[in-house]
Amino acid sequence: MYFEDFFVGFTFTTKSRMLGEEEIITFAKQYDPQPFHIDKVAAKESIYGGIIASGFHTMTTAFALSLETGLWAEASMGSPGMEEVRWFKPVRPGDTLTVRAEVISSEASKSRADIGRTGMLYQTFNQDGEEVMRWRTIHLLKRLP
Amino acid sequence: MYFEDFFVGFTFTTKSRMLGEEEIITFAKQYDPQPFHIDKVAAKESIYGGIIASGFHTMTTAFALSLETGLWAEASMGSPGMEEVRWFKPVRPGDTLTVRAEVISSEASKSRADIGRTGMLYQTFNQDGEEVMRWRTIHLLKRLP
Repeated sequence: MYFEDFFVGFTFTTKSRMLGEEEIITFAKQYDPQPFHIDKVAAKESIYGGIIASGFHTMTTAFALSLETGLWAEASMGSPGMEEVRWFKPVRPGDTLTVRAEVISSEASKSRADIGRTGMLYQTFNQDGEEVMRWRTIHLLKRLP
Repeated sequence: MYFEDFFVGFTFTTKSRMLGEEEIITFAKQYDPQPFHIDKVAAKESIYGGIIASGFHTMTTAFALSLETGLWAEASMGSPGMEEVRWFKPVRPGDTLTVRAEVISSEASKSRADIGRTGMLYQTFNQDGEEVMRWRTIHLLKRLP
């Protein structure tokens, strides 16, 4: 799929992935070592009442699920950034995440004829259908050869 | 340090960390397995001309550097989100990252007397002083006991 295939309103849903406690703690020890992510006792005494996943872990898991669809394999050339990153609800050990993605804008580059800018909304849901996270981003995509 | 200590205009600079090629590829294989992050040959033929770090890897490295200062140890209660996430320049194997953080807003919670909302700007620089990434975020912080 190329830039032209990601028309505004195109949506897809990813496979699901469960985040286990060990994985949550391992990630957080390296990248977000706050007590409520890595220390069961401290987490229990925190406002969260137990271990929760780092928001960066939720984000990277969601992004990996999106890549796993294979939809980006041909066209993706990276991203200049993200907007409106929101963590709505904690992700707890054993929660299963699924991502819904929607194309919300599509604009051919003015400076490069072979590139387009595709705006996406990524929403991540838990097993109860609750939205735990969202963000908007721009993908730089190759145009049809 | 508590909410009251993070006054508007307070800044700090972190230690520096070098991102090696193996670490870059290992992170990306798990969370951002795009060719220009994990495949040296494909990366060389891409617009980047070689392996570059996942933007999520730059972000999590920067966040870990901020936590390493110890400034957040007492007060941090997580974050509701981020704005204006920007990747300005590629981070390449061997690049050394340093983070400058600045308090840009400070607001006591209206609903909870023991919490404040502290707005931060995080800027990440490489060894040449070039800004490679930035984002804005809100930290939920405990107020002075």
